[in-house]
Amino acid sequence: MPSARIPDDLVKSGGGRIVLVVLDGLGGLPHPESGLTELEAARTPNLDALAARSSLGMLLPVAPGVTPGSGPGHLALFGYDPLETVIGRGALSALGVGFELEAGDLAVRLNLATLDEEGRVVDRRAGRPSDEVGRAAVERLRDGLREGVELPEGGEIFVEHEKEHRAVLILRAPGLDDRLRDTDPQTEGVEPNAPEAQDPAAEDASRILARVLRRAREILSDGDPISGVLARGYAVHQGLKGLDERFGLRGVAIARYPMYRGVARLVGMEIAGPPSSDEEAVELLGRGLEDYDFHFLHHKAPDARGEDGDFDAKVASIEAADRWMEGVAALEPDVLVVTGDHSTPAAMAYHSWHSVPVLIQSRWARPSAKTFGETACRAGDLGILEARHLMALCLAHAGRLEKFGA
Amino acid sequence: MPSARIPDDLVKSGGGRIVLVVLDGLGGLPHPESGLTELEAARTPNLDALAARSSLGMLLPVAPGVTPGSGPGHLALFGYDPLETVIGRGALSALGVGFELEAGDLAVRLNLATLDEEGRVVDRRAGRPSDEVGRAAVERLRDGLREGVELPEGGEIFVEHEKEHRAVLILRAPGLDDRLRDTDPQTEGVEPNAPEAQDPAAEDASRILARVLRRAREILSDGDPISGVLARGYAVHQGLKGLDERFGLRGVAIARYPMYRGVARLVGMEIAGPPSSDEEAVELLGRGLEDYDFHFLHHKAPDARGEDGDFDAKVASIEAADRWMEGVAALEPDVLVVTGDHSTPAAMAYHSWHSVPVLIQSRWARPSAKTFGETACRAGDLGILEARHLMALCLAHAGRLEKFGA
Repeated sequence: MPSARIPDDLVKSGGGRIVLVVLDGLGGLPHPESGLTELEAARTPNLDALAARSSLGMLLPVAPGVTPGSGPGHLALFGYDPLETVIGRGALSALGVGFELEAGDLAVRLNLATLDEEGRVVDRRAGRPSDEVGRAAVERLRDGLREGVELPEGGEIFVEHEKEHRAVLILRAPGLDDRLRDTDPQTEGVEPNAPEAQDPAAEDASRILARVLRRAREILSDGDPISGVLARGYAVHQGLKGLDERFGLRGVAIARYPMYRGVARLVGMEIAGPPSSDEEAVELLGRGLEDYDFHFLHHKAPDARGEDGDFDAKVASIEAADRWMEGVAALEPDVLVVTGDHSTPAAMAYHSWHSVPVLIQSRWARPSAKTFGETACRAGDLGILEARHLMALCLAHAGRLEKFGA
Repeated sequence: MPSARIPDDLVKSGGGRIVLVVLDGLGGLPHPESGLTELEAARTPNLDALAARSSLGMLLPVAPGVTPGSGPGHLALFGYDPLETVIGRGALSALGVGFELEAGDLAVRLNLATLDEEGRVVDRRAGRPSDEVGRAAVERLRDGLREGVELPEGGEIFVEHEKEHRAVLILRAPGLDDRLRDTDPQTEGVEPNAPEAQDPAAEDASRILARVLRRAREILSDGDPISGVLARGYAVHQGLKGLDERFGLRGVAIARYPMYRGVARLVGMEIAGPPSSDEEAVELLGRGLEDYDFHFLHHKAPDARGEDGDFDAKVASIEAADRWMEGVAALEPDVLVVTGDHSTPAAMAYHSWHSVPVLIQSRWARPSAKTFGETACRAGDLGILEARHLMALCLAHAGRLEKFGA
């Protein structure tokens, strides 16, 4: 099992409560004038007070140089090796649009494409349509696929738009296998491939998918520029061992955006709310504190403002988080962790590979500075650490791990 | 494939230009009087100015405590795990003497040995001859092997002297296999073993090698102290996936010494020059800047002066490098990396296992100090990092990696 590096059988059945606050895209790059990152430039009295009572460090989200999407970024924070936890691009796409994947679902990445009247591929990406045009085509597809496709008993089809020419199809039926040939021929002027089974076990999936794709072609055939779909990147979602089984944690997620609830559900967390404001999120956290061992609170704004390329707005979003952080600290959980799932430097206006500050506040912290920021955390007690190891530290600080060996 | 830890399919087809300057043996140990290492004692205004705009860190060449030769040291810098990239001792020996190995070549490490008239081993190392004596024997061998050995069509034999009693034999012929018995009996007073095939696939190689060794014995039989050879450490060179295939990089090496051109060629780089001075090396770099994505510039002097055990001369060699570094920086590559392949502390007069300072200068750096040296780099943003991860960081800073996952 892909995992935090904890020897078997160390997890105790009880222990302290852990609150993990993820300030999405927290890490940044220095402003050319001040030399301070967004977090360092922000006035954060509450985070600084926490830092003074915390072990500090920097988390490497995935591996050196690797820029994670939110899926891998969060899986790592939850103690799963994001390089070994193969969720499949289709599944990640489904998660990315907030779809609630179930174990056994076959997720398929779709290209919305332009096909000519003979069914040959004219443009594999339909001229990279706008999100609006892409979404409209997906809605026609979704409506059309409700009828006219014969599915096994209990079978279901879902289609979700992702971005521009990208969408994801989810087939839910018993016994699906993902060893299928891509229908995307990777070139133009030829017809799409049939989704042939590349293993006898995938015959059923091949038959169903062929039917779905035939029907999709009918639905879209008169569209312009989107007149067909190409399928690639199949993945049957295996399901993951949850936090309960792996770490003995009853978990709950408090997140305003569906993607993050999706990743939390993947690892077996329950969902509270969802809240409609950060204040409501803190209130939900307080109300459920006694009911769960592990509380994941997700805050999107620093990533969004970073992606806008707006340094000052990202600073302001961190200052806003600092204000409600006072309420989180006042709940006095046994372990309070604040970090991000990756960096989103305003200078790059995009996720990046740079390491992310982390604080772990508990009775057992080894503090090293009185501020929370890249410079302080770089010199902290935890050093630079792959994010997948964070969970073991949470468990340790919560008194949830036995001694290893005699 | 042994590798930097980059998930599949993240490498883009384009991006910024990367210049990697290797100051061989850069890392050092503090002088007992000043407490400064060679790099810290050197006046390096250009490197310091670069450092102020760079992410800093320390590279661990192979693994804690492991002192690398130049082969593994450079393979790591190029993104190959030096512990998993088994090139074979014979192949490394061939590289070490600047031999241009091709895929399929069978490299064999030879001991120059003393045998008695009955062909029994008297001294497995021929009394550890001087380099001069060893080299002379290898030259006789090379001349003699030109004739009198029947080889398959297109077959070739090469012999290169390595050091003292060590040499390397390279057989080039189709279909060679390295599952052969060592002829070195590892003891004295007995005859060498026959190079028996230990797998049916190695029968051809066994027959050819037996002929070569019989002829070698004839050539050397009247020599003193070197009157024969013992073979061990066979390796058919598999070839490595090159930088192009793995990282989408068209690479070029600018190196005055053959060993470094050899390692670069191994990973598919082209060779510029070779230059006859450092100034010419910088000029070559500038002239080819547009033609390649990845430029490897090798500078030998700090290692050589370190091996001399001469602290001041090593300091001077680093100061000399700093002078031409101004010209490198003036080229303004998108990513400029300066590091070493290992430490060569003058106090040890030898390669060592100690970590090596590294700077990565790009638009996306997170600077932390205004000087380049062990003390500054230790507190840098990159932390202490295995050298094999450097390439992923180079690619990231050059904008050459896609985001991982949704």
